[in-house]
Amino acid sequence: MKIVAVRVTPIAISDPPLLNASGVHEPYALRSIIEVETDNGLIGLSETYGDKPVLDALLRVKGRLIGHSPFDLNGLWRQVASSAGPSETGTHAIELDLAPGSQQNKAGHKTFGAFEVALLDLQARSLGIPVHELLGGAVRRQVPFSAYLFFKFASDVDPSYRPDTWGEALSADQIVAQARTMIDRYGFGSIKLKAGALAPEHEVECLKALKRAFPNHPLRIDPNANWSLDTAIRMAKHLQGDLDYYEDPTPGLEGMAELHKATGLPLATNMVVTNMEEFRRNVTLNGVQILLSDHHYWGGLRATQSLAVMCETFGLGLSMHSNSHLGISLMAMSHLAAAVPNLTYACDTHYPWQDDEVIKGGKIAIENGCVTLTDAPGLGVELDRDALAALHEQYLRCGITQRDDVAQMRTFRPDWTRKKPRY
Amino acid sequence: MKIVAVRVTPIAISDPPLLNASGVHEPYALRSIIEVETDNGLIGLSETYGDKPVLDALLRVKGRLIGHSPFDLNGLWRQVASSAGPSETGTHAIELDLAPGSQQNKAGHKTFGAFEVALLDLQARSLGIPVHELLGGAVRRQVPFSAYLFFKFASDVDPSYRPDTWGEALSADQIVAQARTMIDRYGFGSIKLKAGALAPEHEVECLKALKRAFPNHPLRIDPNANWSLDTAIRMAKHLQGDLDYYEDPTPGLEGMAELHKATGLPLATNMVVTNMEEFRRNVTLNGVQILLSDHHYWGGLRATQSLAVMCETFGLGLSMHSNSHLGISLMAMSHLAAAVPNLTYACDTHYPWQDDEVIKGGKIAIENGCVTLTDAPGLGVELDRDALAALHEQYLRCGITQRDDVAQMRTFRPDWTRKKPRY
Ligand SMILES: [Mg+2]
Ligand SMILES: [Mg+2]
Repeated sequence: MKIVAVRVTPIAISDPPLLNASGVHEPYALRSIIEVETDNGLIGLSETYGDKPVLDALLRVKGRLIGHSPFDLNGLWRQVASSAGPSETGTHAIELDLAPGSQQNKAGHKTFGAFEVALLDLQARSLGIPVHELLGGAVRRQVPFSAYLFFKFASDVDPSYRPDTWGEALSADQIVAQARTMIDRYGFGSIKLKAGALAPEHEVECLKALKRAFPNHPLRIDPNANWSLDTAIRMAKHLQGDLDYYEDPTPGLEGMAELHKATGLPLATNMVVTNMEEFRRNVTLNGVQILLSDHHYWGGLRATQSLAVMCETFGLGLSMHSNSHLGISLMAMSHLAAAVPNLTYACDTHYPWQDDEVIKGGKIAIENGCVTLTDAPGLGVELDRDALAALHEQYLRCGITQRDDVAQMRTFRPDWTRKKPRY
Repeated sequence: MKIVAVRVTPIAISDPPLLNASGVHEPYALRSIIEVETDNGLIGLSETYGDKPVLDALLRVKGRLIGHSPFDLNGLWRQVASSAGPSETGTHAIELDLAPGSQQNKAGHKTFGAFEVALLDLQARSLGIPVHELLGGAVRRQVPFSAYLFFKFASDVDPSYRPDTWGEALSADQIVAQARTMIDRYGFGSIKLKAGALAPEHEVECLKALKRAFPNHPLRIDPNANWSLDTAIRMAKHLQGDLDYYEDPTPGLEGMAELHKATGLPLATNMVVTNMEEFRRNVTLNGVQILLSDHHYWGGLRATQSLAVMCETFGLGLSMHSNSHLGISLMAMSHLAAAVPNLTYACDTHYPWQDDEVIKGGKIAIENGCVTLTDAPGLGVELDRDALAALHEQYLRCGITQRDDVAQMRTFRPDWTRKKPRY
């Protein structure tokens, strides 16, 4: 089985005005859809970031895979390494820690991981088995995700924005209503509140309101390192007892280590342990106790399995991070989560926020908070070429080539500046 | 593809009177040969320890695999865990550190790893690809091994012993002659001297003689923790500059850490970092800098790949340990070594010391010090059923069920006692 064609298609998917530590989501989020075709007529799929530096790296590698075996992951690494392009100076430093996938030091792992998922999809399809079986067998068929709540504006100031049925979510009542809608629709059994956007005291009040409304749902709060150490310690006093884990409240591994020492709260991250070097530093510093893995920047599914072994070895909990994404990424995450025994937390996903889809059959069902895995070969999804073409058109039309939540926030608040930690 | 039959056959293979820290090898070494058959007529092979506790554990699991998919490694873990037998109190404490595979706390990993190799063989055969490709692709087709020298007696006192063409090796000249024969026959490019058997000063003199005779061959010495810390430091002064690495000279991770601090020599181990808990301790203590992996007790090929990622993360070198073994183990080691980019040292193997074989075509060729991997499906070896039957007969006849190098040494020297460190 040899690779005969590789296609990389950038797409833009509509995204609501969700608030975060940097600013607000733009009306479109970018993704790349990868298709790898073999001489026996199979097509492996993958989905990853669509920002220009990632897209450029994918395009540099794709031609080099022709003739390769989909099993030759070490060969893929060689191709990725030898095609490393110019330093990604175009990356907006401003988004780096919100979207670890944008960090330049992860270019290789992002590129490798993007193709690796497509190759694993091919491996599994050629065997007629699902990816979760290829990865060692599902220890769970129902993969739990958590309700991912955001503060948000009712609509965008830019009229190109699609109408948004979710409405405004700035007050505690509105956040509780958002949670109720999420839980009613998808049955989520745990809740994550994206914070770092409004005043910390208000965000904590919202978390408390969620606790009152959903006393049996494990709760998480993620200020994306937008709180100073002092603020994070101060808020911890209010949150103590309410949290499943405290995610990236304050910047830096050292800051997190001090926070853990001061509060004893279990800290989670997708910001300060995002590669092996940082993992190693964390072993010494004990900054975080729970790792939010993400195959998109950790180097694919197999690498994340090794990371899981390392988490077990060093006594770290393991959960999963997400950025705005569609169904191919959701299924890659789900197959991986199904096959990793110690991935015991419900995973994050932005999926309910995305109305667009590129796969046949439309949006993947989330029921009782879970994606259910079947025995369909590979990732179990097929590409809807009409949808892909339309979303690619949307990409060309929207003109966005790199995420910039700060600039977008200035369309609402012209005096908005980058500042971190803001509170 | 479902498993329809599992066979586990204990065998005894003739073994020369090789000296080590405990005593001397018995005339027979024990192995288990594993066959896993699927409903599509494929047979996956594996080879592991044949001592009674391991054999009993294999026999407890084998029936539970019927109906399983060869891809379901997580399911295999569940079966191994739920079939855990009585505590292996029969294990001779005396051999524990010579043969990490005998350690009770590794029962699960040994049992799992034994079957995992057979399942990976099946996975690869079902795809028509070699195991190295299944594991991510060969980064090298020639897998280098080192000449594994032993002090040895000319023959055994027990007349059941087969005649031995290697002859006595106790003096420096004899060891150099042994090295020359090994290198002439197999082309090895590096040399390992099993030490801890004779007086340390003499063993160091032998190492020096090897250095003079083979100035361009990287050298290693392995006293199997039979030297006190003082002795190990004293010998290090003589060895400084001659060694590729200094393998397990002195007992305990703490002892190794002190030795490394005192000498700065790179220390290797297959004794003090043999599971994840010890790996974690080593990160703190920096006792060893090079890990000699062994899929037989680390939990199989995939687990060793994760271990390799961990070695890379924590800056440890990676090589490979062996016990007396035949061609199925050699091929499992070779396929793994081919697919692990950071396995950059020549691996250990006892293979030249074993004349017996269970695979078709007889002994596997080692040329230019390397096993050469082809594109044959799976591990690339087939079972010779006549040879298997004969070696199983030999197992039944020899009466050994558990390795005991101390008792065997008493047939030469009745006053021999267990003592460690002896020097
Ligand atoms: Mg986060
Ligand atoms: Mg050793």
